[in-house]
Amino acid sequence: MKNLLNGYSRKAGLAPGTIVHIGDRKTERPKITLINYDQDSFEEKVAERIEDCFEQDRKGVTWINVDGIHQIDIIEKLGKHLELHPLVMEDILHTDQRPKIEDYESYIYLVLKMLRYDDIDNDIKAEQVSLVLGRDFVVSFQEVEGDTFNAVRKRLRTSKGRIRSMDASYLAYALMDSIVDNYFVVLERVSEIIETLEDELIQNPVSETLEDIHDLKKEIIYFRKSVWPLREVISGLERTGPPLIADTTQIYLKDIYDHTIRVAESIETYRDIITGVMDLYLSSISNKMNEVMKTLTIIATIFIPLTFVAGVYGMNFEYMPELEWKWGYPAVWIIMIMVSAAMVMYFRNKKWL
Amino acid sequence: MKNLLNGYSRKAGLAPGTIVHIGDRKTERPKITLINYDQDSFEEKVAERIEDCFEQDRKGVTWINVDGIHQIDIIEKLGKHLELHPLVMEDILHTDQRPKIEDYESYIYLVLKMLRYDDIDNDIKAEQVSLVLGRDFVVSFQEVEGDTFNAVRKRLRTSKGRIRSMDASYLAYALMDSIVDNYFVVLERVSEIIETLEDELIQNPVSETLEDIHDLKKEIIYFRKSVWPLREVISGLERTGPPLIADTTQIYLKDIYDHTIRVAESIETYRDIITGVMDLYLSSISNKMNEVMKTLTIIATIFIPLTFVAGVYGMNFEYMPELEWKWGYPAVWIIMIMVSAAMVMYFRNKKWL
Amino acid sequence: MKNLLNGYSRKAGLAPGTIVHIGDRKTERPKITLINYDQDSFEEKVAERIEDCFEQDRKGVTWINVDGIHQIDIIEKLGKHLELHPLVMEDILHTDQRPKIEDYESYIYLVLKMLRYDDIDNDIKAEQVSLVLGRDFVVSFQEVEGDTFNAVRKRLRTSKGRIRSMDASYLAYALMDSIVDNYFVVLERVSEIIETLEDELIQNPVSETLEDIHDLKKEIIYFRKSVWPLREVISGLERTGPPLIADTTQIYLKDIYDHTIRVAESIETYRDIITGVMDLYLSSISNKMNEVMKTLTIIATIFIPLTFVAGVYGMNFEYMPELEWKWGYPAVWIIMIMVSAAMVMYFRNKKWL
Amino acid sequence: MKNLLNGYSRKAGLAPGTIVHIGDRKTERPKITLINYDQDSFEEKVAERIEDCFEQDRKGVTWINVDGIHQIDIIEKLGKHLELHPLVMEDILHTDQRPKIEDYESYIYLVLKMLRYDDIDNDIKAEQVSLVLGRDFVVSFQEVEGDTFNAVRKRLRTSKGRIRSMDASYLAYALMDSIVDNYFVVLERVSEIIETLEDELIQNPVSETLEDIHDLKKEIIYFRKSVWPLREVISGLERTGPPLIADTTQIYLKDIYDHTIRVAESIETYRDIITGVMDLYLSSISNKMNEVMKTLTIIATIFIPLTFVAGVYGMNFEYMPELEWKWGYPAVWIIMIMVSAAMVMYFRNKKWL
Amino acid sequence: MKNLLNGYSRKAGLAPGTIVHIGDRKTERPKITLINYDQDSFEEKVAERIEDCFEQDRKGVTWINVDGIHQIDIIEKLGKHLELHPLVMEDILHTDQRPKIEDYESYIYLVLKMLRYDDIDNDIKAEQVSLVLGRDFVVSFQEVEGDTFNAVRKRLRTSKGRIRSMDASYLAYALMDSIVDNYFVVLERVSEIIETLEDELIQNPVSETLEDIHDLKKEIIYFRKSVWPLREVISGLERTGPPLIADTTQIYLKDIYDHTIRVAESIETYRDIITGVMDLYLSSISNKMNEVMKTLTIIATIFIPLTFVAGVYGMNFEYMPELEWKWGYPAVWIIMIMVSAAMVMYFRNKKWL
Repeated sequence: MKNLLNGYSRKAGLAPGTIVHIGDRKTERPKITLINYDQDSFEEKVAERIEDCFEQDRKGVTWINVDGIHQIDIIEKLGKHLELHPLVMEDILHTDQRPKIEDYESYIYLVLKMLRYDDIDNDIKAEQVSLVLGRDFVVSFQEVEGDTFNAVRKRLRTSKGRIRSMDASYLAYALMDSIVDNYFVVLERVSEIIETLEDELIQNPVSETLEDIHDLKKEIIYFRKSVWPLREVISGLERTGPPLIADTTQIYLKDIYDHTIRVAESIETYRDIITGVMDLYLSSISNKMNEVMKTLTIIATIFIPLTFVAGVYGMNFEYMPELEWKWGYPAVWIIMIMVSAAMVMYFRNKKWL
Repeated sequence: MKNLLNGYSRKAGLAPGTIVHIGDRKTERPKITLINYDQDSFEEKVAERIEDCFEQDRKGVTWINVDGIHQIDIIEKLGKHLELHPLVMEDILHTDQRPKIEDYESYIYLVLKMLRYDDIDNDIKAEQVSLVLGRDFVVSFQEVEGDTFNAVRKRLRTSKGRIRSMDASYLAYALMDSIVDNYFVVLERVSEIIETLEDELIQNPVSETLEDIHDLKKEIIYFRKSVWPLREVISGLERTGPPLIADTTQIYLKDIYDHTIRVAESIETYRDIITGVMDLYLSSISNKMNEVMKTLTIIATIFIPLTFVAGVYGMNFEYMPELEWKWGYPAVWIIMIMVSAAMVMYFRNKKWL
Repeated sequence: MKNLLNGYSRKAGLAPGTIVHIGDRKTERPKITLINYDQDSFEEKVAERIEDCFEQDRKGVTWINVDGIHQIDIIEKLGKHLELHPLVMEDILHTDQRPKIEDYESYIYLVLKMLRYDDIDNDIKAEQVSLVLGRDFVVSFQEVEGDTFNAVRKRLRTSKGRIRSMDASYLAYALMDSIVDNYFVVLERVSEIIETLEDELIQNPVSETLEDIHDLKKEIIYFRKSVWPLREVISGLERTGPPLIADTTQIYLKDIYDHTIRVAESIETYRDIITGVMDLYLSSISNKMNEVMKTLTIIATIFIPLTFVAGVYGMNFEYMPELEWKWGYPAVWIIMIMVSAAMVMYFRNKKWL
Repeated sequence: MKNLLNGYSRKAGLAPGTIVHIGDRKTERPKITLINYDQDSFEEKVAERIEDCFEQDRKGVTWINVDGIHQIDIIEKLGKHLELHPLVMEDILHTDQRPKIEDYESYIYLVLKMLRYDDIDNDIKAEQVSLVLGRDFVVSFQEVEGDTFNAVRKRLRTSKGRIRSMDASYLAYALMDSIVDNYFVVLERVSEIIETLEDELIQNPVSETLEDIHDLKKEIIYFRKSVWPLREVISGLERTGPPLIADTTQIYLKDIYDHTIRVAESIETYRDIITGVMDLYLSSISNKMNEVMKTLTIIATIFIPLTFVAGVYGMNFEYMPELEWKWGYPAVWIIMIMVSAAMVMYFRNKKWL
Repeated sequence: MKNLLNGYSRKAGLAPGTIVHIGDRKTERPKITLINYDQDSFEEKVAERIEDCFEQDRKGVTWINVDGIHQIDIIEKLGKHLELHPLVMEDILHTDQRPKIEDYESYIYLVLKMLRYDDIDNDIKAEQVSLVLGRDFVVSFQEVEGDTFNAVRKRLRTSKGRIRSMDASYLAYALMDSIVDNYFVVLERVSEIIETLEDELIQNPVSETLEDIHDLKKEIIYFRKSVWPLREVISGLERTGPPLIADTTQIYLKDIYDHTIRVAESIETYRDIITGVMDLYLSSISNKMNEVMKTLTIIATIFIPLTFVAGVYGMNFEYMPELEWKWGYPAVWIIMIMVSAAMVMYFRNKKWL
């Protein structure tokens, strides 16, 4: 639940645009990577200081990737260099934004959520990724160093695909695409968990299963919250059109939009299914209770009358003629057997046995 | 559940537009059929190699049907010949697209789902059908060889109906129509299954019925997911208008749109009904439990007091005057009969008997 | 359920526009009635053959009513005479269309559902009514001869109201109005059934009630499906405007639209109420179970301890001092009475008694 | 339920625009009040005959209020005088219209519902109010004489507020405002009933409470149905703009719109809360059942084993060594006490005690 | 519940625009604070009388804050001075408005809800804040003196951030921002309560928990009602555009809009989660009942047959051969042990043990 509100309340009372990092503080030093490329050249370096990225005479597309955003001065210097609006800088640092797109004419600011299913805590971990897309540059901010963008880096290095021949908006698309593709990995994990739960339910439902279902439901709600606004983000990006988004990139945005819809739809489907699983659990509990009750009822209704009969002939009245009959005892047994047989037949008839 | 995510996660990290076949790999060799017709002529042949389809001097409408898409080179050659966008080629091969329409000006790319109820696995199998509609050609891609398009082929051969006198957009419509018409077959199967389930429930609900309901629910969710986006596809096609869609075809698209709405509505209706069936199941379980409890209660409340009475006169006190009375034993019997009669009347009164 | 899918699957594979009658085949010969009127004249005749309706020199408004659509040649001839689109003819014959409106410029094609509550089968029977509205004619197709249009006929004959002075679009409106007004009769029947069910539930819920509720729910779902699309049909008709719809008719369409909304809203309300009735049923079952359990618990918890006490003094130990006490037996009775009194007080306290 | 369908079915078959009064027939003679005012003058009289209201030479705003609409000739004469459309006259008389607005250019026709919570029948009574707003007159039709408009009358008489200086549209607004303000009184009554129900539930839920909840739910559904369409009515009125609605009145319509939204939202809230109350009821029933079962289980599981032990030593075998032991009887007691103590500890451990 | 309807019904019958204070009457004297600032100067004073605020020769932005609105004459004088519409003055005093925005061209009137979680009453307290934004002034009305605006005051005094260099619309934004930021504090409190409830449920669900859930649900419904309309308010403010809203402020409004969406989404999420918690409660009750029943069933089904056996050999028939057997008694014990062992194995098999 904590990730739903991440420190917003801590910020109440501060001036808007105040640059404060809100989020888990990671201790490692931020890592700044600079990649500059065009169709023919490719240059990659790790910047010691953020100022190293500010040389003006570069051609082609520049991609500055910042892993770790807790060192405010780096963001501030970069923000001033790129003339970012104070609210953008605030949002980059405040790591629990809703996915959104903001068009500041000279650049576009994008917030996305990078998701990961944590098998140890059994929940979905989210990391905020901010992208600033300018005419010839993309700046990306990640909370920690991750490997999601590695595939893009590799394609740039090896010049595989069309990425090197495209402009900055295609790079931004490629980064978003790698984030969205990652959602499918999370989805698959969720799908597996649901299947495991279903199997458990059918085999042996225990009350822990219930809590697992409840937890999974909450994770799916959180997942949905991270993905749902993305649809607007991407269709907002599509609408932005020129000059920042190249025509050739537009068609790719449509593709990523389709993927987002697919993820959103699958989440809805899982919500429906998990509700069904809950129902299944509840009715399997009912079923078991029913069976328990039936067992009790059958045993009790057969033996209670018999016990009564036995009780009757255990009475100590002086004048009980049956007691002295020679065949009294066998007769009682016969009566008792007949009574139970009748009971059993009654239950058979009712399909309880 | 697997069909909800089909291999998307496997693709994470690949460059967009990478042509990889994702889906079940079928071992048969793809079969390429070429049909060329106009009002007067009709030519049909099975192409050995895809290049056989590339002759340029054909008149009329050309329909290339590819059954089996796992042989990437065929798709690649065809794609290059038709100048398809790399994303289109990726989507043709990646067999778990959402139904969609993409207008690339010189051609329209359509994805549909062909559905089939599999009576052995008791689920709905989906197959992706891609259609590429150009000015004078239609290319259709199916995952396996099927018989859904046979009716169209036959109408072309026999020149039955108006199909031979119409243009390529009408052919595309005819193919889509045969797919949508097929949904009704699946719907009917679903309808039968629901009726069977209802009958089972009323006659003898067992816990397996519950799992059947849950499975059917999931199938309907999946069905819905395949059909729902089709509405946008077809209305998107209607909007496209000239030049690719002939005016005469427009009116037929409206008809297919109506059918899609009907399918979608029926699916919604089945969702509602299946929810009702679930409720029916749960309350029939409650009902049965109630009856079980009543039986136990009636038997127990009648005999427990009687057993107590018998127990009292089974005590071994030396001074128990009743035991020595001559009519003690019959008196006890009379008391016991009266007590049970009172109980039975009480239950009658409460309508438990 | 059958009426949800009526033969669509039977048609899969046929060419679109193939004129096949799908629906229950009624054996009577179709009956064709021709009415021609203007403000001053009125002519009514039953046509032996459809050709009798094709005279060209009529003035005023012509209304051709066809009861029974299973004789395809009649529809075909009429269709050719009026130059109807093949899809329209297909839809007239295929009696499970969704209510819809199609504007073919020279005429408007309307599909409506005429509903009737069948008290014997306890379900809602639907009949498809097709209307073709041209500049100076209305053709109506009914599946069987019915009396819904009689009121319109009578108003035409007696020149009551403004119908004779209005044009064809007003006649079409009058026919639709009589169909929609009929929905209220069905609604009232549904309302009565719900009230009966509620009374049954409060007095004596049995498990048959549950099936009745489930059936009614399905009927309401089906009712809704027939009425819901009508809203679009009528607002579509309103939008069509001139030339086919006279300005004076427009205002009446608004009225019929209001009625449709009212029907649709009432159906929604009944859905809500029937859900409430279901809940009422379930909780009255729970309530009864609770009462059953209470009865059992009270009887058992009072007598089980007493039976134990009796059992103790029924033991045959040689050294049981109590057995030889003079007041042992009365003392046991006093103890037992006190125990039960305490129990009763405990239950009183808990408000179980 | 009756008020959901009020006589619509009775009208099926009549010509549209037929002037028939449908609704409860009240026996009192209709009362017609005529008020004429401008900033300086104010005239009020009770008209004996409707013709008394037809003098043409009045200045300022004229308000004709008709209490009781069952005398058709009055409505007919008034309708003819004001040149109302036959459908409007039909709607005035047919007292179960949906709230609506109809703009006939020279006048606007409004239907509203006046609501009242009837404490004797414990339901919401609705009365239809029709308003006809012309350039310089307002005609209002009520089913019975009521006091809702008294406040408006008083403000007119005493010239309190700005009403005397405004035009007819402001008068119409004032009448609507007094109706909408009245909804809050009904809402408050509903709120009180819900609170009473909640208190009852927490203290002592009985099955009558359930029926009360069900009835209240139906009342809220009906309330909602009366208020919901009002939003469209008022925003329709806002859109109408000049010439009939004065600019100065527009801003007041916004205010009444806000109130309507507030009522609609509160109704939704009550729906949510009443659903919650239902859940509360169901779970409090479950809770009570649970407690009942626990009591039974604790008593039974403690005494059943003890009774068994007593039963064992009540057996009449000749060779039962324990029976002859001197300390046999006390030993059995000790065993029995230990068994029950163990049981009690077990239940304590399980938190059942 | 009371806060849902706050005195609306009390007002029924009054003329619209009547200036009456509706809300809890607080006894303290209203406190009027006047702040006047521009980039270089800052002046703050507490006004004794409202007339002190009416000097005309001020430059820069003027902020008049009124804490306590129950003294009608103050509001009236201020309203006349600023030429506020009577409806605005009515709304300021009537403290249960829906959040809304009204554009009166020369000024904008805004209503917001300031929320606070009251830990003693365990509910959300709301206070109405009215803002009147003119070209160079902001007037804010609060029901009681609060500290929410202190942060804004401090920023003004210390000239921290950009607030002193901005215009009146930025000040209005800053005030709204401090209110919206405060919602996150309430959200966090709600989140904590839900977590506490979940923990309670898993450890030891008692029936009080149920009432807590029900109360929390109602609080969330109320919370939602206060926040939901805010979205329209702020987007309405964004649309207003020039002249009252400076371009530089627009971008900040977007930021506040994002926050509002986030709050609204979180509330929806909590609604979903609380529904899940309710389900969890109900099924944990079911689970416990199941366990109770199992215990009873196991004990009863083991001992009832044994007691029967003991009962049989407690009968006093004269001819019961077993009684005289030497090994009769041990044999009975063996039988009884075997029966119970069989029972235990049966339950093991069923996984009940």
